[in-house]
Amino acid sequence: MKKIIIYLGTIVFLLMVSFFLGSFKLPTFKNEPPAVQQNVVIIFMDDMGYGDPECYGGGPYHTPNINKLAADGMRFTNFYVAQAVCSASRSALLTGCYPTRLGISGALNHRSKIALNPSEETIAELLKAKGYRTGMVGKWHLGNRQPYLPLQQGFDEYLGLPYSNDMWPVYFDGKPMTDTSNFRSTYPPLPLYQDNKIIQTINTLDDQSQLTKMYTERAVQFIEKNKHQPFFLYLAHAMVHVPIAASASFKGSSGAGLFGDVMQEVDWSVGEVIKALKKNGLSENTLVIFTSDNGPWLTFGNHAGNSGGLREGKGTAWDGGLKVPCIMSWPGKIAPGSICTNLATTMDILPTLAGICNASLPSKKIDGLNIIDLLKGKPNANPRDEFVYYYDYNSLKAIRKGNWKLVFPANSQTYGKSGAIGGDGFPGKYGSDTVRLSLYNLRTDPGEERDVKEKHPEIITQLSTIADKYRKEIGDGLTNQKGTEVRPAAKID
Amino acid sequence: MKKIIIYLGTIVFLLMVSFFLGSFKLPTFKNEPPAVQQNVVIIFMDDMGYGDPECYGGGPYHTPNINKLAADGMRFTNFYVAQAVCSASRSALLTGCYPTRLGISGALNHRSKIALNPSEETIAELLKAKGYRTGMVGKWHLGNRQPYLPLQQGFDEYLGLPYSNDMWPVYFDGKPMTDTSNFRSTYPPLPLYQDNKIIQTINTLDDQSQLTKMYTERAVQFIEKNKHQPFFLYLAHAMVHVPIAASASFKGSSGAGLFGDVMQEVDWSVGEVIKALKKNGLSENTLVIFTSDNGPWLTFGNHAGNSGGLREGKGTAWDGGLKVPCIMSWPGKIAPGSICTNLATTMDILPTLAGICNASLPSKKIDGLNIIDLLKGKPNANPRDEFVYYYDYNSLKAIRKGNWKLVFPANSQTYGKSGAIGGDGFPGKYGSDTVRLSLYNLRTDPGEERDVKEKHPEIITQLSTIADKYRKEIGDGLTNQKGTEVRPAAKID
Repeated sequence: MKKIIIYLGTIVFLLMVSFFLGSFKLPTFKNEPPAVQQNVVIIFMDDMGYGDPECYGGGPYHTPNINKLAADGMRFTNFYVAQAVCSASRSALLTGCYPTRLGISGALNHRSKIALNPSEETIAELLKAKGYRTGMVGKWHLGNRQPYLPLQQGFDEYLGLPYSNDMWPVYFDGKPMTDTSNFRSTYPPLPLYQDNKIIQTINTLDDQSQLTKMYTERAVQFIEKNKHQPFFLYLAHAMVHVPIAASASFKGSSGAGLFGDVMQEVDWSVGEVIKALKKNGLSENTLVIFTSDNGPWLTFGNHAGNSGGLREGKGTAWDGGLKVPCIMSWPGKIAPGSICTNLATTMDILPTLAGICNASLPSKKIDGLNIIDLLKGKPNANPRDEFVYYYDYNSLKAIRKGNWKLVFPANSQTYGKSGAIGGDGFPGKYGSDTVRLSLYNLRTDPGEERDVKEKHPEIITQLSTIADKYRKEIGDGLTNQKGTEVRPAAKID
Repeated sequence: MKKIIIYLGTIVFLLMVSFFLGSFKLPTFKNEPPAVQQNVVIIFMDDMGYGDPECYGGGPYHTPNINKLAADGMRFTNFYVAQAVCSASRSALLTGCYPTRLGISGALNHRSKIALNPSEETIAELLKAKGYRTGMVGKWHLGNRQPYLPLQQGFDEYLGLPYSNDMWPVYFDGKPMTDTSNFRSTYPPLPLYQDNKIIQTINTLDDQSQLTKMYTERAVQFIEKNKHQPFFLYLAHAMVHVPIAASASFKGSSGAGLFGDVMQEVDWSVGEVIKALKKNGLSENTLVIFTSDNGPWLTFGNHAGNSGGLREGKGTAWDGGLKVPCIMSWPGKIAPGSICTNLATTMDILPTLAGICNASLPSKKIDGLNIIDLLKGKPNANPRDEFVYYYDYNSLKAIRKGNWKLVFPANSQTYGKSGAIGGDGFPGKYGSDTVRLSLYNLRTDPGEERDVKEKHPEIITQLSTIADKYRKEIGDGLTNQKGTEVRPAAKID
């Protein structure tokens, strides 16, 4: 009897102890340096505007996976690309430099005589040197000849288009180009590369509608394949750049037009990538960065995104062209649901990743800053206080310091005014407003509507002085000033 | 020996079972009707713009408590007040009606001859009838004579100002009014009411700087006092309406000017309320709604908020006047970090609360719709598809259906253009743009910059027909059309 009581008593006691033990999770040490190598995934959208994801005010389509990424991570509200056009923006992301410093501007095409110089060090090269497997899927746009393709810039593997999905001999409604006076008629069929080889051409809107799915499958395969070693995945979608197209599963899915369908498909893609990380137990060792190469191409009306009320869009130096959605998720490292309102840019990604992955910085000077303190949510961190807006053959169009933006005069359309509505997927035309010297307080006036230059001459002086520093160093196409620190792009013969 | 093996084996087995049992939490039944009565807290800001909280893009000040509320709950991106001015907006919140239906317009002052009719049923009255303790703290603005104060409209207790904090004989810089030709000189000292009695007057900016703290303490006391019974708390802050003022603990705290300091103090206030709910174990039984009465009063320059790039602000029928931040948090009921992009309004709060709290709807017709399906995150829920913009003596200025906004012509400044920069807290002046018939696609153009009426005559016809329905029912001051369903406001002799 006594034995039975001891027996039962012990069981009850141990039950209680172990029940409570089971209720507690092991503590996590958020501020410890990472013990294992961290993976990196960059999802780079094309022409997705500041206002396009639901968590940035977009809709009426739904983007639950992008919202979830933000809810699990950090959402930036003052995140800029280095220039509001494709090739320039992408060169800045991969090198941490103003494109102006690299001799890159605009959007390269099949006839372009320049490419990103192989002597520049890309994120892929820095991480590869640390033993990372580096994969790229999607739009490259930094040189479409073999010596300048991704495999020659640090990537182990590549699947994608070498330039924009509208660089083909097809009208925007999908009809083959017949007008030989149209510059589009000079394009060859859109080439899909695997590594250094063209494996297929993209000839119709139907072909385009498969791109998001194809890229997503490839990205997921890359994660699966490399789950046992550190990797860097750069997924640069073709969408939501015109001509927009959605696969059969998403066409009509949003009830909000083709643009909504396309948004829902790229949102699905984000979800698939996150799911692959989770499935392979990689979530906590992977920093995912989701952002866009520039603002919406407003010219294309309802086939384009929106800048969430910011002024203008792609192809301008107004904030609608350069301020983009940006979400960084890194479970266990970045506090869920956090907001970063500090100024940050795509150029800051390279030095931040170098810090996280213990990789070396490039030997040449870069413009990016390590923003790890922002990711850690340090309240007084403010690594970047100024930013220069270049556009139009690397003219210095504007400068931001703190919340002040000083806009320099421009006598051409290029500043510009892309607001003409294009209708149902057909281009309208740019306006030609003359832009005068003007000063905006982006705290009170993020839409750049109210010029306050008369009230703050001292701010104009201060910002002009900083602008001169950039002019001297990396030049100003507007005043034909050559920068002392500009490095040449690669020249294609 | 055998006994010992059985003994130890049993222990190990039970240890394993109970460890796993301990690891699991009891399942929660999200879709079950609430077993206990739910409390309601509405935090209503004054003149806080769509772009002001950090989670809506604001800064460089910090709003961690508002961000956290959003991270724990649902953030709305298409949430509207019923009119972009104080009294009208507040009457809509409390009754679920367009102010036009109630005979209320504009901002009542000490000389106003009307008040919210006591025959209208407010949220407080509906919940009081269900046994709720109802408390109000802050700005009333629906009638400043005793028969029309909060205690006569369903509130058990009240502490606050009967109208706006700028309705006093003091200049905006805090100097006493000396110019007897200035209409402000006719105001009596600003009266602070407790229940139906004036207990103090607010005479200086120093007095104003105590309001946020005083209101917060009172709100927390109300929660403490009523923790054992269902309650409804309506906390209507004086801030961030001019004259803005922060208490000593917050003055200079933001490094972003006085407006930043004031934002940080109201953010602290939100944190104190949430903390009081948590401390008393009320979080999971309390729906907290955080929103604003209208957009920023842009006239006041850097003493005002911002509309996040939306067009114009308070005192206009542009979206910057009516689209406001709105967060609803209800742990265990609303999914954390969720985003609602559907159209919803302050008028929808009353019927939604009535549903949640099993209260009756008012006997008279209301305009609000029960949006509980949005809170539940039901993907296809779309309770509200249209919204009418009234302003300027209840003129029908515009109508929204889906993403289309049709703006009707207005030949006065009142549509209007409040964009003149006032500088450092001093009023500028309204512009006087003539507004023509125009059509905006808010999906592609949330900033209402690009009129597309030429392209969509069928949308103009459709929206005009709906507008006529509202004109017939609740009138249109612009065309002197009287509505058949308008109920009179209370008349003050």
